[in-house]
Amino acid sequence: MEIIPVHMDKKIRPGDDLPSTVVNALRNSGIKLRDGDVIAVAQSVVSKAEGRIVKLRDVRPSKKAKRIAKKVGKDPREVEIILRESARLVRVAHVLIAQTKHGFVCGNAGVDRSNAPPGCVTLLPSDPDWWAEKIRERIQRDTGARVAVVITDSQGRPFRMGAVGYAIGVAGMKPLMDLKGKKDLYGRKLRSTIVCPADALAAAAVLVMGEGGEKIPIIVIRGAPYKRGEGKIKELLRPRERDLFL
Amino acid sequence: MEIIPVHMDKKIRPGDDLPSTVVNALRNSGIKLRDGDVIAVAQSVVSKAEGRIVKLRDVRPSKKAKRIAKKVGKDPREVEIILRESARLVRVAHVLIAQTKHGFVCGNAGVDRSNAPPGCVTLLPSDPDWWAEKIRERIQRDTGARVAVVITDSQGRPFRMGAVGYAIGVAGMKPLMDLKGKKDLYGRKLRSTIVCPADALAAAAVLVMGEGGEKIPIIVIRGAPYKRGEGKIKELLRPRERDLFL
Repeated sequence: MEIIPVHMDKKIRPGDDLPSTVVNALRNSGIKLRDGDVIAVAQSVVSKAEGRIVKLRDVRPSKKAKRIAKKVGKDPREVEIILRESARLVRVAHVLIAQTKHGFVCGNAGVDRSNAPPGCVTLLPSDPDWWAEKIRERIQRDTGARVAVVITDSQGRPFRMGAVGYAIGVAGMKPLMDLKGKKDLYGRKLRSTIVCPADALAAAAVLVMGEGGEKIPIIVIRGAPYKRGEGKIKELLRPRERDLFL
Repeated sequence: MEIIPVHMDKKIRPGDDLPSTVVNALRNSGIKLRDGDVIAVAQSVVSKAEGRIVKLRDVRPSKKAKRIAKKVGKDPREVEIILRESARLVRVAHVLIAQTKHGFVCGNAGVDRSNAPPGCVTLLPSDPDWWAEKIRERIQRDTGARVAVVITDSQGRPFRMGAVGYAIGVAGMKPLMDLKGKKDLYGRKLRSTIVCPADALAAAAVLVMGEGGEKIPIIVIRGAPYKRGEGKIKELLRPRERDLFL
């Protein structure tokens, strides 16, 4: 499996045609895409193309936001934006752990100051699967390659220090895969063993993106094991009542 | 970055010289190691070499194990082994979520029936860092290459379905890395951004291992971004009181 970085110096602005920008960046990189390649695209560029950028000075914090902001020492306008992005708050501390309206549990509901224009924050894309599909379609139309697309984000996680890449949107692939039927060392068929290629590929992609200080928002992954098909990110979200870790 | 599978048909038995087996498998693969390569080794072969295999018929379950086994419908002998491996139980259900004595929070405290000989279970290695270091040393002695080694495991996780690879032991690398100092798109230096190359590399490695039905217990990762040095896996374990996700 190869993880190939694609540099992009162009700054994405709201309303930019992201699918065509991605195709151009891939072309400029000289990589000839093949069927089965997975294209990872960083959340930050997707959010910017969608215009998911908020100027803090335009935000009027609610009473609740002010109260939380005071308690945890954050900017009340930023707390207001986090609350708007959240379906529920998991924990209120210097980082607000929240479940976003998409269902992701992450720090500050994905509201991010880094790589945002000065005085602004970026929000997660409103529908990352939709963006993944738009990029997948455009790549197929313009290059003929039948690829999968993963929109990636970098997130903290329970139990372990350090952020790691996660998938927040997919197209052209199932986010999960069952290894059932493969034989183990003793020749017995593996019982149902569900793995998550979408997250594993996102982890590898984001590690390589990170080296570029956000100048590598696109990664081509070649030779990845995954199941093609129409997949949705919600397939990998664990229903809370089935989450034994909590 | 390249993720290169190394096939190994030899079954590892207790007492086998694992470091030399790994070096031989690498040699047979024809891969010429380079300084900076990361060698991922699956927990299952490490556990077997250490003799961390328990015959269920040799186990006498305690009263507590019997009580839990009855409640959740598991084999009381398996529950007994899980309890012995655990520092604390997080959740008692059809999978026992437990924190192992190493500090990992995982299903069944890492006690595993798959890929174990019939009637047996495997336990996690007692000191995965030690094994990583032994393998690292042997590779350097026999090939001259200064590599890092990651012992990997496949684990379920909170919030998301599907197992993903995690690091449970490291040598020759820091499990965490700070991207501080890299510049963002606006030319500002990134504030402290701690990422976890050990887990990201384990995720990629285990995805590729999984395709082999455990016949690919070794992966060579070339071109990975990580920080060399003496690292310990405990550096990436988040102290419970600092875990905002729980």
